Amino acid sequence: MQAIQPYLNSFLDYLKGNAFQAQPTELYEPIDYILNLGGKRMRPVMLLMAYHLFKEDYQQALPAAYTVEIFHNFSLVHDDIMDAAPLRRGKATVHHKWDVNTGILSGDAMLVYAYEYLLKLENSKHLAALLRTFNKAAIEVCEGQQYDINFETREDVSIEEYLHMIELKTSVLLAAGMKMGAIIADADEHTQEHVYQFGRNVGIAFQLQDDYLDSFGDPEKFGKKVGGDIVQNKKTYLILKALEIGDADSRTRLQEYMNTPTTDETTKINAVKAILENLGIPKLTFDLKNKYQAIAFEHLAAIDVAVERKQPLIDIANALLIREI
Amino acid sequence: MQAIQPYLNSFLDYLKGNAFQAQPTELYEPIDYILNLGGKRMRPVMLLMAYHLFKEDYQQALPAAYTVEIFHNFSLVHDDIMDAAPLRRGKATVHHKWDVNTGILSGDAMLVYAYEYLLKLENSKHLAALLRTFNKAAIEVCEGQQYDINFETREDVSIEEYLHMIELKTSVLLAAGMKMGAIIADADEHTQEHVYQFGRNVGIAFQLQDDYLDSFGDPEKFGKKVGGDIVQNKKTYLILKALEIGDADSRTRLQEYMNTPTTDETTKINAVKAILENLGIPKLTFDLKNKYQAIAFEHLAAIDVAVERKQPLIDIANALLIREI
Repeated sequence: MQAIQPYLNSFLDYLKGNAFQAQPTELYEPIDYILNLGGKRMRPVMLLMAYHLFKEDYQQALPAAYTVEIFHNFSLVHDDIMDAAPLRRGKATVHHKWDVNTGILSGDAMLVYAYEYLLKLENSKHLAALLRTFNKAAIEVCEGQQYDINFETREDVSIEEYLHMIELKTSVLLAAGMKMGAIIADADEHTQEHVYQFGRNVGIAFQLQDDYLDSFGDPEKFGKKVGGDIVQNKKTYLILKALEIGDADSRTRLQEYMNTPTTDETTKINAVKAILENLGIPKLTFDLKNKYQAIAFEHLAAIDVAVERKQPLIDIANALLIREI
Repeated sequence: MQAIQPYLNSFLDYLKGNAFQAQPTELYEPIDYILNLGGKRMRPVMLLMAYHLFKEDYQQALPAAYTVEIFHNFSLVHDDIMDAAPLRRGKATVHHKWDVNTGILSGDAMLVYAYEYLLKLENSKHLAALLRTFNKAAIEVCEGQQYDINFETREDVSIEEYLHMIELKTSVLLAAGMKMGAIIADADEHTQEHVYQFGRNVGIAFQLQDDYLDSFGDPEKFGKKVGGDIVQNKKTYLILKALEIGDADSRTRLQEYMNTPTTDETTKINAVKAILENLGIPKLTFDLKNKYQAIAFEHLAAIDVAVERKQPLIDIANALLIREI
């Protein structure tokens, strides 16, 4: 995706120039490790693009881009502990490579450093607005993670609750980051809100697509093991929708699969996928994803700048959100 | 301690008026629990007193007082997980009452809320200075905790390193909180530094006293089990000083006790205390504590306000730091 490259390079340079190489090494090495595991860097890149809607010198927003990337990685380190996950991006998670205490404490330090980089912006006139925007998202991410944990043991999760949870857990940080880019670029509050809503709706659409791909994606392209959510009995949009619209027989069979420990993964994955396909869930999921995507583009359209300035955001959204199933 | 009462009452009212009663309850109940477990509230009270050195309406500084108290309690929640501690202030720790994941996530949310309260100050003109001061301390507290963990498995901890660790882990937050009080009260930077150094030196003196009392305190007055540090083989100032100045025989016996798992607690406590007393360690510890206390009072004396305004800080420091052994 060519449009991304200058923003990504700029961010990666900044990341390299602001490596965590300090004492005590036991605290800072894990931070350096997780920040250099890769990832799409979607949040910092889209923050820079949001700034660039309004002003040229998007390098001004780099410290804030680092803020959201450090925060995102902090949340991965702590979530991986809570989920007892051994791998992240194909490499050992921090608490696996070191130990749980290291994961907790390095994560804590990352959270503090996320705020530290807000202080590194050249102009401090927007500090209160930035802190308010970032903090709101940070609290919501914690709440989203708690809802996600709660849902594991709840049998009555509604689709509305699920959509609220993924919004908190995965899209508010993208949205807040983009709004921060707009704030730093002196955009007015009305415009900031359109930028925020663009990010929020792209984020929700992306998560719905991720739910879809986890079960129905091409294993070659998806990058993760297809069927992981089914094996883990995760109550994704696909499952919740099937339980809502399914006939009695489909619902019973689905619930049986969800309530039985997985013995033969392949058989279970194929059986659950067959039920979902039979109910037309893939298309319904894609329709809902498209609805959020369309709302996102409406908000982008409402931003009063020349359309050429919006091209990088149009390109990245189209690259993140595939067109058809 | 009468001088403390108005500040403490004011803070406790604010705490009550800003209880964490929100959704999801699984996230917020543990926060409310730990914040209401009690404690001396030394940090918020001394922050208010620092403000009151310069201005009357110390209630203005209450949100910042809450910031440092929330942060302090966040660090207790996460430290208790790392130390696998079942009790805090005689009650179950958060991860014991709920579970480790709850402790991690509620702690994370507390850290975010600590920043949130900086935004609740009526006047935002000092926000950058406050954020800078608070963040420096927050990072140092994480570093101090890491050094503390490192020292458990290191045999060559120097006294200098130990003093640096307790400064980071226990006194910089008190110092930064007091400096924040001074900042909010519009004190100049030179004055802020004296306020900071008063808090920093009181904090170190208090920790050295705590080391002393843990082994030699009156069990009736100390509140914790006397001898706990000895049973846990903690390398406190007392032990490190004994290893530095002790004769070969004392050092060997001390190291034997430190390297042997405790079977008979009382015998071990008495034996180690006898070695320490024989080397004059209690007095040396108290002398060092008095040195830091004296430096603290020099910084207080250097603050250019009427001595009556300093009385609450003089009173609280004298109450926290006992005069003789």
